Formats: sequence, C-alpha cells, structure tokens
Amino acid sequence: MKMDEFKVIENIIRITDDMDIPDDVVISNGDDCFGFNFSGTLITTTDTMVDGIHFLVEKFSPYDIGVKSALSNISDISAMGGIPLYALVSLIIPPFFELEFILDVYKGMKDVFSKYNIYIGGGNISRGRDFTITLMLIGKVEGKALTRSGAKPGDLIFVSGSIGDSSLGLEILLKKGKGPHLSEIESYLVSRHINPSPRVELAQSLVGVATSCIDISDGFIQDLEHILESSGVGAQVFLEKIPTSSEYSVYISREKTYNNLVEF
Amino acid sequence: MKMDEFKVIENIIRITDDMDIPDDVVISNGDDCFGFNFSGTLITTTDTMVDGIHFLVEKFSPYDIGVKSALSNISDISAMGGIPLYALVSLIIPPFFELEFILDVYKGMKDVFSKYNIYIGGGNISRGRDFTITLMLIGKVEGKALTRSGAKPGDLIFVSGSIGDSSLGLEILLKKGKGPHLSEIESYLVSRHINPSPRVELAQSLVGVATSCIDISDGFIQDLEHILESSGVGAQVFLEKIPTSSEYSVYISREKTYNNLVEF
Repeated sequence: MKMDEFKVIENIIRITDDMDIPDDVVISNGDDCFGFNFSGTLITTTDTMVDGIHFLVEKFSPYDIGVKSALSNISDISAMGGIPLYALVSLIIPPFFELEFILDVYKGMKDVFSKYNIYIGGGNISRGRDFTITLMLIGKVEGKALTRSGAKPGDLIFVSGSIGDSSLGLEILLKKGKGPHLSEIESYLVSRHINPSPRVELAQSLVGVATSCIDISDGFIQDLEHILESSGVGAQVFLEKIPTSSEYSVYISREKTYNNLVEF
Repeated sequence: MKMDEFKVIENIIRITDDMDIPDDVVISNGDDCFGFNFSGTLITTTDTMVDGIHFLVEKFSPYDIGVKSALSNISDISAMGGIPLYALVSLIIPPFFELEFILDVYKGMKDVFSKYNIYIGGGNISRGRDFTITLMLIGKVEGKALTRSGAKPGDLIFVSGSIGDSSLGLEILLKKGKGPHLSEIESYLVSRHINPSPRVELAQSLVGVATSCIDISDGFIQDLEHILESSGVGAQVFLEKIPTSSEYSVYISREKTYNNLVEF
C-alpha cells in the first residue's frame, strides 16, 4: 500500500476516537486483545466481504461498503434476538490503495456502529490482493436465543419488511451503478441493498415468543430452507401473501414490459 | 472453487465433530451466531494470515498453515495472561482449490485448538483470490489482564525461550522449503517458525506479578518498543544477555562463514 500500516491504524483510531467507551470495557484498542467484563449469554458472529465477490469497489462508494458490511453483521446478531455490543474489524488492503478510501469505509462502519451503540474494540490490518472486510460482532441475549432449529409443525411463518427489494437493488447496482442517473424507484431499491435494515428491536421482542428465527441474506426461500432443515419440518408458502414493496412491483412490471419490447 | 460451499462446510464440521462441547456453550456451530454463557473478564483478538504475505502455500504444508495460524492467535491471548476458550474461523478460498488442502489446514488448526481445550464455535467461508485465514479467539482473564501500558521505570525486562529462531526458520523456509533435505539444525529452526510456543501457562502465572507483557511477533526490539510507547518509558537492553539457542548460534556462524566464502 502507498501508506504504511501504522499510519493507517493511527488514522483509523482517530475516526473512532469520539466513540464512548462502555463502562464494561477493561482493555481498549491498541493492545494484544480487546477486553470487557460480562455476565450472561454472549453470542458472536463473523462475516467476510471480499471485493469482486460481495461488492465491487468500482460500483460501491467506500462509505457504502462500510455501511453494508456493518449492517449485515448486525443482522446476524439480531436474527438470534441479540443486542450487538462490540465489533472487531479486520481489513485486507491491496498495495497502492488510497488512505482516503480505507478511511471512508471505516467511517461508514463507524456511523452504523455508533447508531446501534456498538463499540469498535479492535481489529487487524493485513496486506493482500483483494480489499476484504472481516467483521466479528459480539452481542448478548437476554433470555433464550432464537435459533434456526426451534420450528414446529403448525407454526406460522412471518417475515418483516418487504421481500426482493435488495436483490433487485443489487441487479440495478451492477447494471447501472449508483448516482443521479437512477430513477427514484431504482435509487430506492439500490438503497435497500446497501442499507439493509437489521431488525434488532423487533427480534429482541420475539425472544420467548417465536420458536425460530433467521435473517434473510441468501433469499427468502433459501433461508427458510435453513430453518426447515435445522428444525426437521416442512413448510407451506403462499407466494401471493409474501409482502413486496410498491417499488418492487413497479420495477418488475416495467422491466418485464421493457424486456418484452426488446425481445419482440 | 471446485467443490460447493456447503460440501466444504459439511466436511469441515465432520473434522470438528469429535471435539467436546463445553458446558457453557448454548448455541453451537451451524446457526447465525455462536453462543455461550459467561461471567468475568473476556478478552478477544483477531488475526489474518494471507497467502503470499504471511505464508506461501507452495512452501508451507496445509497442515502447518493451520497450526501456525492457530498458535499465533493463542499467543495474543496468552500475552495478556489469558486462557483461550473459543475460536471462530473465517476462510477465503480461491477458485479451484482442492478440498483436501482446506481440510488439512483445518486439521492443523483443530489439533492445536484441541491441545489447548479451545472449542471451534463457528466461522465463515468466502470465495476470493488469495487463500486467507482470519481467526478470532475468545479467552478469559482471571485477575487483571497484562497490558502493554503498565511498564514502570526500574522494571526488569524478561523474555521466555530463545530469541531469533523463528526469524531464521522463516528465512530457511523461504530459501529451501521444508523437507528431509534440511539439516537437523535447519529443521529445528523451521519448526520454531511453524510451531511457535504460546506461553499460556507462564503468562497466566504472571497475572498480578508482571507490570506489562507482549508476545513477540514483529521481533524483540519492535515488540519491546510497543511496550515502551504504550507505557511512556525507555529501556536499556544488554544485547549479550538476550537468550539464543545453540542452533541459532551454530547456524549464524556457519552462514556467516559460508557468505564470506561466497563473497571473497
């Protein structure tokens, strides 16, 4: 990389300097480990996003890359009815990457984490060919965590929000990129891809109520299958009852018409 | 990759199947998060090893890559006087990588983790160009964690083991690779690089005794500097008192002679 590792770390730490250090933290950023006092049930998750696979640096703004990777991890914690507490951030930075780019990614993550009162406890910087973010999130569960394996015959299936927006958003992003040239509907769908909404409070309120829970990241049917497999049950899905946004419907019908026009 | 992601995960889980699940674990492998009950001071660390940067797949055996990455992370926990408990394993796997290779890496990690009673709680698999291992280790500290910032004027500096073996071992590995063509001394030095010795028990016994502590990964002088900077103190080092192994001395003197022969 153009800049040295210590300069990157120094600049990154400056971005997170104004975060409040939670009372339970006993060893903060900059030591061999991050340390905190705790009593109860902890849950922890890790997720990796690789340039060229999970995003494209030329299509996403660096800030958006940070936002999306933070939100995806928060979603895993909330899928268990958990409250996210701490994050560790590992970056792989290719040679000749601009410091500004890395700091913008970091700002995106930090803004999301601040919103959810998540403290960045540390991390790691490595060199490598592909820009990569691996986040580890630590959270707590008050009560019995929601798992994939609790579903029982007779249970009803609920989804929150509307299905399919994020997937269309990605399609638009890859085809057209982001920017003022997008229609209002396209911008909405793209923002639903970049800014997924982790259901932190909703899921917490389901602890002790729902029998199982999962966040949708692979798509509704695939993620439902994860629950069915883990729980050893089947499901009957009424496709017409799946909630979709009006933007989704409008975009799908327009694109269909357009595709028909092109085809014939 | 040649194999699909779910097949890799299935095979990996089979490797770890015989690990005892600790009593405190409430959500094991295969859900959105890994969960456990805990009360006390937790410490957590993350470290990334990238092919071509931290190791070379053509010089290291896959098993050794797993061993080394596990041991390096354990060393960070022990540097704080901690007891390692749980690991999360994130792999980035390039296309056309052999399943056998990945499983051998995993076996290396698992054997080390088993030895230290560390339970692998989960992880993540992504695609990407460089084979990469990001480990997150969670441990506990009984008492006040050893930090980098506690050193005071008048403190003595101690090191454990012998200094410099690992660095020479890496040099040999890069120059000659591993195998029966190495001399006994060279094999010893290489093994010191691949099998670093985390001082888990020693460091635990130093909690409440030492004022500061760090593991040596960048080299004795650089890591000492980390303590000095964090603690705001200086140090006087008697180079002749730094313990080195007899293998180190023999290798250094032979290589010197050899280099002299080549040069003149």
